[in-house]
Amino acid sequence: MLQPEQAFGETLRELRMAKGWSQETLAFEAGLDRTYISLLERGQRSPTITTLYSLAAALGLSFPDLAHKIDHHMRRHGRKNH
Amino acid sequence: MLQPEQAFGETLRELRMAKGWSQETLAFEAGLDRTYISLLERGQRSPTITTLYSLAAALGLSFPDLAHKIDHHMRRHGRKNH
Repeated sequence: MLQPEQAFGETLRELRMAKGWSQETLAFEAGLDRTYISLLERGQRSPTITTLYSLAAALGLSFPDLAHKIDHHMRRHGRKNH
Repeated sequence: MLQPEQAFGETLRELRMAKGWSQETLAFEAGLDRTYISLLERGQRSPTITTLYSLAAALGLSFPDLAHKIDHHMRRHGRKNH
């Protein structure tokens, strides 16, 4: 099973790339640092609920919608023993 | 509008009390410190996604279910200008 911060990081990268956005663009839209986005996408930081709300809003999602996507990613990859 | 960590803290307290649990019991079930639970419930700490997963599991909820309850609480209290 993936750790929550890994599932989050991979989900964040997928959502960002689906928009065709660079890390810089996402950072700007969410009011966060580009280097922090990079650490989050690699699962090297565990986002707080405040960061989750900011990123969801930047991506045009509600916080519960983002939570569903993260949880789905974690369960899907958990079954493959990644 | 409530801040995310305030909405989370108030939701956590409601969920804990609905189970008739003390902060000590919730801390034990979630593998966290009692003093940290107290800070979270008062909105004085912003939980990470790892903490959100631990607390959801301790309360018998999925992470998306907990996210829905937090978001609902935030929106409900936002309308009352709390």
